[in-house]
Amino acid sequence: MTHFDQRDFQKMDRLFRINLINSCSGYKSANLVGTKSPEGVSNLAVFSSVTHIGSDPALLGLIFRPTTVVRNTYNNIKKTGSFTLNQIHEPVLEDAHHTSAKYAANISEFDATNLEEDYRKNFPAPFVKASPLKIAMGYLEEYSLKANNTILMIGEIKHLFVDDQLLQKDGFLNLSKAKIATINGLDGYAIPNLKTRLAYQRPKNTSQNTV
Amino acid sequence: MTHFDQRDFQKMDRLFRINLINSCSGYKSANLVGTKSPEGVSNLAVFSSVTHIGSDPALLGLIFRPTTVVRNTYNNIKKTGSFTLNQIHEPVLEDAHHTSAKYAANISEFDATNLEEDYRKNFPAPFVKASPLKIAMGYLEEYSLKANNTILMIGEIKHLFVDDQLLQKDGFLNLSKAKIATINGLDGYAIPNLKTRLAYQRPKNTSQNTV
Repeated sequence: MTHFDQRDFQKMDRLFRINLINSCSGYKSANLVGTKSPEGVSNLAVFSSVTHIGSDPALLGLIFRPTTVVRNTYNNIKKTGSFTLNQIHEPVLEDAHHTSAKYAANISEFDATNLEEDYRKNFPAPFVKASPLKIAMGYLEEYSLKANNTILMIGEIKHLFVDDQLLQKDGFLNLSKAKIATINGLDGYAIPNLKTRLAYQRPKNTSQNTV
Repeated sequence: MTHFDQRDFQKMDRLFRINLINSCSGYKSANLVGTKSPEGVSNLAVFSSVTHIGSDPALLGLIFRPTTVVRNTYNNIKKTGSFTLNQIHEPVLEDAHHTSAKYAANISEFDATNLEEDYRKNFPAPFVKASPLKIAMGYLEEYSLKANNTILMIGEIKHLFVDDQLLQKDGFLNLSKAKIATINGLDGYAIPNLKTRLAYQRPKNTSQNTV
């Protein structure tokens, strides 16, 4: 195995470090975050940091790096309280990735790509029309992370829209049925196929090993 | 599309809600967290919430639900300051998933499965021998999330061990070269194949659209 330690991280080329550290946590979710400015300009940005926080209440979190392109997203959410999450699937991969380009706040990524806006249930932020799994989110709270000045933002799920083919009888969404993507590192994409669902686990039946 | 709103979430069967909300954020990382208690008992637990926080310094975060099986993991980290992250790959899928069973604190999941302990660079917490991507982590800080009483814990990467076949010249780790898993929902697993790496994006060359 190749070994790196903290001294290596400090010495290595910046892009090498970004690629390495962004890859090492494993596969990431691939979402487009949709927002609208108070002036009415739509914004769309690819995020790989959307994380499950809890199911009751239904909460998701995402990480903001304050100095990056997604600053428009952050500002719009803080001003309006609303955003959407739209799973990225195979047909829109290139357009989704292009939203990482640094467009000015007065430019809508919907205009710069073939992605189309979609409005549902009077929710103010734009959904991505083609996306097979769309979520309307309400801003709840945020935490400034001292370790590196990033922000964890937490939102509540207000509406969930899923293509019928994804939904199984027990509530499980089979993401691979809609060719939903996962992100490897900064710029790698894969379209997984579900391999297996494993049963709920209980301790093996030896003496004295249960809680 | 099927539509659910907050009233639906409240009314639905608990297991249906857990499956639905755990699936909707997209694909998740699949890690085994290795710890050791002050009394010397090793612990291993599957986590799907490991998230990239930053690359300089190199930081990762994970979410703890205080009332679950992973309480042993949390206690060990708080007492010792050390833990490991070990990517789950195809050959160990069943054993890795079995670590979600609720074993008592005096039982090591290494004894309850075929997974073997591995010690490197005098780091006190156990690695998973078979894992192709292992990380030694030091506890840094934590945030109690008011929205649902979960905890975001942040750690710094102290050592990174990667199978040589994963590492590309620019630092990118091709996770699919080692058949590393991703998690769909609570209990679904996929073994993705890298489809593409997309180039760094700049705004399209129309007038007035750059920052």
